[in-house]
Amino acid sequence: MPTDDDVQRLRLIRAEGVGPITCRRLLDRYRTPAEALAALPKLARNGGKSSPPAIPSDADAKREFDQVAKLGGCLIFIGDPAYPSLLAHLADAPPVITVLGDAALLAKPAVAMVGGRNASAAGLRIAETLAEDLAAHVTIVSGLARGIDGIAHTAAMRTGRTVAAIAGGPDVPYPAENTNLQRLIAERGAVITEATPGTQPQARHFPRRNRLIAGLSLGVVVVEASRRSGSLITARIAQELGREVFAVPGSPLEPRTRGGNDLLREGAILTETADDVLDNLSGFGAMFSSGSTPGEGTPWGPASRGIAEDPSCVADWTDHLDEPSGLDRARSQVVALLGPTPTKVDDLLRRCQLSPAAVMAVLLELELAGRVETLPGNRFALLSEFGA
Amino acid sequence: MPTDDDVQRLRLIRAEGVGPITCRRLLDRYRTPAEALAALPKLARNGGKSSPPAIPSDADAKREFDQVAKLGGCLIFIGDPAYPSLLAHLADAPPVITVLGDAALLAKPAVAMVGGRNASAAGLRIAETLAEDLAAHVTIVSGLARGIDGIAHTAAMRTGRTVAAIAGGPDVPYPAENTNLQRLIAERGAVITEATPGTQPQARHFPRRNRLIAGLSLGVVVVEASRRSGSLITARIAQELGREVFAVPGSPLEPRTRGGNDLLREGAILTETADDVLDNLSGFGAMFSSGSTPGEGTPWGPASRGIAEDPSCVADWTDHLDEPSGLDRARSQVVALLGPTPTKVDDLLRRCQLSPAAVMAVLLELELAGRVETLPGNRFALLSEFGA
Repeated sequence: MPTDDDVQRLRLIRAEGVGPITCRRLLDRYRTPAEALAALPKLARNGGKSSPPAIPSDADAKREFDQVAKLGGCLIFIGDPAYPSLLAHLADAPPVITVLGDAALLAKPAVAMVGGRNASAAGLRIAETLAEDLAAHVTIVSGLARGIDGIAHTAAMRTGRTVAAIAGGPDVPYPAENTNLQRLIAERGAVITEATPGTQPQARHFPRRNRLIAGLSLGVVVVEASRRSGSLITARIAQELGREVFAVPGSPLEPRTRGGNDLLREGAILTETADDVLDNLSGFGAMFSSGSTPGEGTPWGPASRGIAEDPSCVADWTDHLDEPSGLDRARSQVVALLGPTPTKVDDLLRRCQLSPAAVMAVLLELELAGRVETLPGNRFALLSEFGA
Repeated sequence: MPTDDDVQRLRLIRAEGVGPITCRRLLDRYRTPAEALAALPKLARNGGKSSPPAIPSDADAKREFDQVAKLGGCLIFIGDPAYPSLLAHLADAPPVITVLGDAALLAKPAVAMVGGRNASAAGLRIAETLAEDLAAHVTIVSGLARGIDGIAHTAAMRTGRTVAAIAGGPDVPYPAENTNLQRLIAERGAVITEATPGTQPQARHFPRRNRLIAGLSLGVVVVEASRRSGSLITARIAQELGREVFAVPGSPLEPRTRGGNDLLREGAILTETADDVLDNLSGFGAMFSSGSTPGEGTPWGPASRGIAEDPSCVADWTDHLDEPSGLDRARSQVVALLGPTPTKVDDLLRRCQLSPAAVMAVLLELELAGRVETLPGNRFALLSEFGA
């Protein structure tokens, strides 16, 4: 049974306009999820939203806990000891994940294997051998897609265990041909998602799925990826997170390995065998041998703490909320300075005569009103329909 | 018609026990080739050689000039303006090369393409495309072997020009299946060798042929090479010479590309197209755009000048030659310190009480007596039959 705090926390996470970074900021500012929820409507109204934001009821949140429990899964909040420690390092770490299967598996060292859906026979063979050999030492994370993903999961279960990060709800099989595989992984490994039960996976969900794959893993192995493959996005995220990127080389005559060759040009580690991967993970081993419980010590991760996280802003900021005229002026200035190109908050501050606290207050309100998008690295962008 | 100095120079180069480095040192010490030749018997006797060294007669040397001229070729001595400038940079640059065809071609920027003899259809196709595309911009150097070498030469002639570096004499076709190709390259490009007319290529000649390939080129492209391929030796030499090394990647399932993949691991430039090569040669372009005549300015190349090249040693050294008892003692000391493992001359000096000049005098004599091998980098090794 979830505690009342869990229920309120889930309501906040699922509220309209509340993304991972906003959620984190709200919980930094207000003492409890309940207080943050209470402030939401006013904040959104200040930001220019005409209708109050949709917030799930207690019953809605409880229903989600029930649904996940019936599937044999659980919801894990960031900060919980069971929350995967590597994932917690992300600036936009999911505030909650849904896990079917063995949640304890997420505390073990993992390596991602990704690649194209229309894989060649050679690519499938390479992925199969690599996954079998790697799974004897680390958990294999992949995205349950056709092609390389599917064979990596399947082969990994022969010698070890595997985690599938999916884009849709935990109860939604996708793609159809991997329905059985998804069920098998939930039984023998773990299936993890950010989506609520019943969510059909859509194109816009896959970048977040890719972030989960990279975020859970010490490194990402790209087996066979064309230049337009989504696997390159996963590799790019891994690189940004400081995780190792591995790529299997291929002939210049094979378009399906050009993306991997490009990664090699950019410094990815050339990978022919599992040893090429394992030999280059040694530096990370310490993260797991130090005896620290996953999630402990870095519940929010070591993301760069900019002005947004400066506690000294809090009092100042809440003061501002009671000065509508001052905030109106601040809002106009910030909106005028923002555009569709992501802008660092430091650049905003340099170009206006507002206090950091006032700018952050305005940005949060604009985001809750759906007018501004918050991006990792303290960057903000005006959503296109509100642009000049 | 060769000058008398040319004839004496060729006699010295072809004399028994005189390798590229010894030849260079003799010409540094004596004013003319004739004087060096006159000193040879005494030096070899001092070194412990019982019979006088075999030295070709004037007639022998003139015959070689005649033979090469009849083949339509020429002999080019190091220091001549026509001597390839990049080759002159080698510490053990050949004192003379024999060239059939257009010797002026050797002054143009060149890139080597090498690979296995038992190439795959894919490898041949890649080599063909690369050679055609590269030859439109640079001369293609290769070793006239079966497989990758042969197709690189052939394809290069469709869009540009090519140079074949061979292990045997200029009039010896090898391998048999490339007889026509060798003739064609001599007509439209250039064939270059260190071997005298009539020399049948033997296994021991090929490392020197590989050195020529790397030495003539701004960079070496390895197209398809197994882990035991001789192409890797050429790549290794290129690396030591500070030339660029390029490698075409291949699937882990193809043993014929593992050598290239290993080179990529070690930092070779990943190559799928000619642009990958050309884009990484820009730094070298200046060597050719400065307007300097090839061979000028650096007739002996910028090899690291150690104690062996210190001019102050010369007088001292020739003095020693007239003190037999002192040199006998020095010879015993040096022989005792040397072994089959190459030893730097600096290490020898540190471990004996001899002057640098005395040590160099002894080493030269021992080498001319066939008891010591001189290696690049001022290193010396005792030949096994004379070891302790």
